[in-house]
Amino acid sequence: MDLADISRPVREDLAAVEEGLKSVGKVSSPGLSELLGYTLKGGGKRARPILALLCGRLCGAPGERVVPMAVAAELTHLATLVHDDTIDKSPVRWSRPTPNTLWGEEQAVLLGDYLFARAGELTASTDNLRVIKLLPETLMIITGGEIAQSRSAFQLDQTRAQYLQRVSSKTAALFTLATASGAILAGAREEWVQALSAYGHNFGIAFQIVDDILDFIGTEEEMGKPVGSDLAHGTLTLPAMLLMEQYPQDNPVTKLFRERGGAEYVRQAVELVRGSSIIDQCFDVAAEYRDQACLGLQGLPDNEYRQSLYDLADFIITRRK
Amino acid sequence: MDLADISRPVREDLAAVEEGLKSVGKVSSPGLSELLGYTLKGGGKRARPILALLCGRLCGAPGERVVPMAVAAELTHLATLVHDDTIDKSPVRWSRPTPNTLWGEEQAVLLGDYLFARAGELTASTDNLRVIKLLPETLMIITGGEIAQSRSAFQLDQTRAQYLQRVSSKTAALFTLATASGAILAGAREEWVQALSAYGHNFGIAFQIVDDILDFIGTEEEMGKPVGSDLAHGTLTLPAMLLMEQYPQDNPVTKLFRERGGAEYVRQAVELVRGSSIIDQCFDVAAEYRDQACLGLQGLPDNEYRQSLYDLADFIITRRK
Repeated sequence: MDLADISRPVREDLAAVEEGLKSVGKVSSPGLSELLGYTLKGGGKRARPILALLCGRLCGAPGERVVPMAVAAELTHLATLVHDDTIDKSPVRWSRPTPNTLWGEEQAVLLGDYLFARAGELTASTDNLRVIKLLPETLMIITGGEIAQSRSAFQLDQTRAQYLQRVSSKTAALFTLATASGAILAGAREEWVQALSAYGHNFGIAFQIVDDILDFIGTEEEMGKPVGSDLAHGTLTLPAMLLMEQYPQDNPVTKLFRERGGAEYVRQAVELVRGSSIIDQCFDVAAEYRDQACLGLQGLPDNEYRQSLYDLADFIITRRK
Repeated sequence: MDLADISRPVREDLAAVEEGLKSVGKVSSPGLSELLGYTLKGGGKRARPILALLCGRLCGAPGERVVPMAVAAELTHLATLVHDDTIDKSPVRWSRPTPNTLWGEEQAVLLGDYLFARAGELTASTDNLRVIKLLPETLMIITGGEIAQSRSAFQLDQTRAQYLQRVSSKTAALFTLATASGAILAGAREEWVQALSAYGHNFGIAFQIVDDILDFIGTEEEMGKPVGSDLAHGTLTLPAMLLMEQYPQDNPVTKLFRERGGAEYVRQAVELVRGSSIIDQCFDVAAEYRDQACLGLQGLPDNEYRQSLYDLADFIITRRK
């Protein structure tokens, strides 16, 4: 099953989200219009809008009620990517140059700020105070998590709990916003809102663990960015942690972090992880979170939207990009 | 009259704003807490909170109702400064190192994002949908204006209308947010909201023109940053425009912009402007906007808060930092 199959029950709403994203790019300033047009046409999977729409529909909302918030969730995601690529000086994403490469850091930082603002504007347009409050709270969690990650770069003494905390902040928080806001805008009963929030949280952790796995086992063509990027930036992810546990005396990750860089160490670490059982172990951890996400859906209405949430949780575990 | 005299009618509310800013820095993450503590203790004049408080009180709001929004306006201002200093690679502001100098660009970008988010959270806490919608709209104007400024760096063919448009976006919009939100939160009649919005707009333009003048005539000690910074960054401001008009054949600004840099040209331009009538002409333009701002206050209640708005408009014209 691919993403188009899974999102079929909300395909019309999703088309409206694409239209919404396109209209974000329609601004009078030619410079800004160019930046937005490029950024909004990237290669994203639109996972956050799909989740918001599925959760909204699952709880009985008419699709159009959730569309602006689904657009806002995607814009928030894009804004964080634009800033991440800028501060990481990443040259490539989705197999094409990043905004910071094409227009420089200055305009990339401002572009990210604009996208955050536009996300806020769309969220405010829902007139729903609970959803409106969720967005900045989520952004505080995300940026707080990213600051923690930045401060922990090339630090060897990190626990698995700290890793999960980081993943929870930098990735799961936005998925939680997407699922929770869908349910809230549908006027769902509190029990359902909580269940879908928990789904988004566990889904997000599984999603990020798979992302961290793909950074080791994916190809540059599939991912649209270099293999081993996390390690190269000094970000300790689950596969690298397990590698250090398996070879406590001598391993390329420890060397890389002590010397704060070294492409050869990155290559060695990637090779060592690929040839070990570490990837299977990481998939097992991701699958636990997938299971946890799905378990929480049991009390919700048994409809095609819920089925898509199950399928989506399976999909993100098996995806290769 | 100094700023303490002018803001005396709202001194208690202003103390609450300072408390509010302090509590923004109280977060569990030690890294983030350090970044926030430093940023919130800068040398700002708190002009935006003062305006929000005066406008709120003028329209009859109890002070505490406007305090969160006054804090939000200041945080938004600080967020834009942190990002501006980062993308300009400015080493110093308020006579001390900038966050990008102390902690690097990565953490400075994230710090700015966090401050934007916190501003959004505080604004949402007002539960006032009109004010909630004003914040992201204002941020879109500000960042849109900054992108335009960034794209026009070192461009010689700029009109005075374009300059005013830039000033209006990058500075006046946030002052308008401050004054309008004070009035809106007070539940003021629409006429007063419009009058105070217009005051904020004209005040903001006068404020920025004076800022642009001080970049030529101030001292590094007074301003806490180097003289001629705007020119060095390729930003064409009113004094530089008038210099080009006065010496159309040959002037250091044209040379600086054609060669995209040159500290000696900056020095020459500053000297030439200081020795001419250009500064007086610029002050005349700023004074027109000050007058325009004050004119709009006539229909408002004649109380101590309105008097402070008059005094504040005079103050920003005569300030030296």
